[in-house]
Amino acid sequence: MPLTTRLTQHLRIDHPILSAPMAFAGGGRLASSVTRAGGLGLIGGAYGDPVWIEEQMAAVGNERVGVGFITWNLEQAMERDPGILANVLERKPAMLFLSFGDPSVFAPAIHDADVPLVCQVQTLRDAMNAADCGAAIIVAQGAEAGGHGESRATMTIVPEVADHLARSHPDVLLCAAGGIADGRGLAAALMLGADGVVVGSRLWASEEALVHPAMLEAARGASGDDTIRSSVMDIARQLKWPQRYTASVLKNAFTERWHDDIDGLLAVAESEAERWKTAWQAGDVTTANTFVGEAVGLIDDVQPAEKIIERMVGEAADLLGHKGPKLTR
Amino acid sequence: MPLTTRLTQHLRIDHPILSAPMAFAGGGRLASSVTRAGGLGLIGGAYGDPVWIEEQMAAVGNERVGVGFITWNLEQAMERDPGILANVLERKPAMLFLSFGDPSVFAPAIHDADVPLVCQVQTLRDAMNAADCGAAIIVAQGAEAGGHGESRATMTIVPEVADHLARSHPDVLLCAAGGIADGRGLAAALMLGADGVVVGSRLWASEEALVHPAMLEAARGASGDDTIRSSVMDIARQLKWPQRYTASVLKNAFTERWHDDIDGLLAVAESEAERWKTAWQAGDVTTANTFVGEAVGLIDDVQPAEKIIERMVGEAADLLGHKGPKLTR
Repeated sequence: MPLTTRLTQHLRIDHPILSAPMAFAGGGRLASSVTRAGGLGLIGGAYGDPVWIEEQMAAVGNERVGVGFITWNLEQAMERDPGILANVLERKPAMLFLSFGDPSVFAPAIHDADVPLVCQVQTLRDAMNAADCGAAIIVAQGAEAGGHGESRATMTIVPEVADHLARSHPDVLLCAAGGIADGRGLAAALMLGADGVVVGSRLWASEEALVHPAMLEAARGASGDDTIRSSVMDIARQLKWPQRYTASVLKNAFTERWHDDIDGLLAVAESEAERWKTAWQAGDVTTANTFVGEAVGLIDDVQPAEKIIERMVGEAADLLGHKGPKLTR
Repeated sequence: MPLTTRLTQHLRIDHPILSAPMAFAGGGRLASSVTRAGGLGLIGGAYGDPVWIEEQMAAVGNERVGVGFITWNLEQAMERDPGILANVLERKPAMLFLSFGDPSVFAPAIHDADVPLVCQVQTLRDAMNAADCGAAIIVAQGAEAGGHGESRATMTIVPEVADHLARSHPDVLLCAAGGIADGRGLAAALMLGADGVVVGSRLWASEEALVHPAMLEAARGASGDDTIRSSVMDIARQLKWPQRYTASVLKNAFTERWHDDIDGLLAVAESEAERWKTAWQAGDVTTANTFVGEAVGLIDDVQPAEKIIERMVGEAADLLGHKGPKLTR
């Protein structure tokens, strides 16, 4: 049963679900599975490694997928490799998804390539800027999301952005991101005024995602209570994230030690960077952090992406069904 | 059109809406209006001023209302006035609503008085503790709420608590709090698995709430982007809130100055306390803070509580109606 919204009509897909372009985890295999399941999959271009992106685009096969970049990082990546955006645009991805920074620098090239621009935002102010930049779809992301984000919640940013778009940019579509891991979250997002959703953590815990098994195992037993938004992982990875963005991860010995002692961490940054990186490669979850959002508490299993999407859509359709939602259990 | 859920059946009310027992703002007039409108109103017992509570209970008239207390503070309030809880319980409120702290100390007295215990929680862990304490209703509160709260979001804590209650305490009811200011939020909360909602900010901006007009005016033009969770107001008020709880307010010159300089604020605590208090009384919103949540961006007017509830329920019923939700605009 397809779940029809403005988003499915606009993108000609069955279900109003995009996969989050997750750095490292969101490769070509996951993206193509999401598209095959009736949503639209995205490759996480992350910190702009052109070889990795090329490999993942090759892994897609013939499915229609999008590509995401970290906006503030893309400028730096283009200093190293000026063709990185153009090379991706040449392949005519289903959409170019920018998050975390001002998209205005890149919007003209994306429009010129006739590729739809999708902008993920964390504030109303950035949503309005994205609309002015010609975004076809705005993704309003709440702090409950996994990985990077800011402080506002899905529950309020979605309807607030919806109201403003309705007034000033009625043709711009809106997706909700953050905390959506099952049919309840999908149905709730549609009630809030979203045309669709972007799913991260739930698809991170899929068979196709590129995630260390030890991290999947750590996530399986975790509650949303066990997550924290912090910057210590970015300091450990020596990534120069703007201060406003933190990342949601599972708390571990590393965040316990450093979250409240950033100056202490900076003083031993190099050795801690090495230790964190080694732990990441080894899947040592006590030192390296598992990047996941609060929705981890709703995830008990690792499933093929197709099953995840089928289940989400089935649950949402049931809640939103012709007989009305099941308000009385 | 009544919106029937397990909560409305259990409490024998028309609409699944409780007013948040807001400190200072939530007096007897607001509580009785909410009950008259078909929900259930609560008086905010706040920091346990027995004279104020008595006045507000007298202002209720014959309507059925509940009373809320700040749990960690109630122990201290009882040292000053040992009868404060017993006096309220003697009046047989519709519910005794505890938030921010461990309810286990007070649960026996509340059960003995045959008054339903309602516990507002901010983590799954506290939700399970509240259920073990015999709470009839658990309120899962997200960080998007106004006033005090913690870090988890409504979007994830509600379904996670719902899943755990379904397994271990299937008869305990669940309300969502945080970010719910219109029919979209109400419908979304029901989709997430809540039996009802607790509404703060939207009813704070009502004609019956005890709020300075200058603060209502500041809220009218604000976006959710303009809120911040901080402790500086509690330091200014010399209230000993446990560190885990911050309060959501509109950013102003006071938060700008002190939010990132707690040590500096502590060094001049007494003079700043005086300055903040004077500003609060005068409605000077550049120094005293307007206590409101991210939903402030969804609020454009001050209405009678009855109109607010009518509109919320009408919108939600429309979204959840027999024809199915309006997924295509």
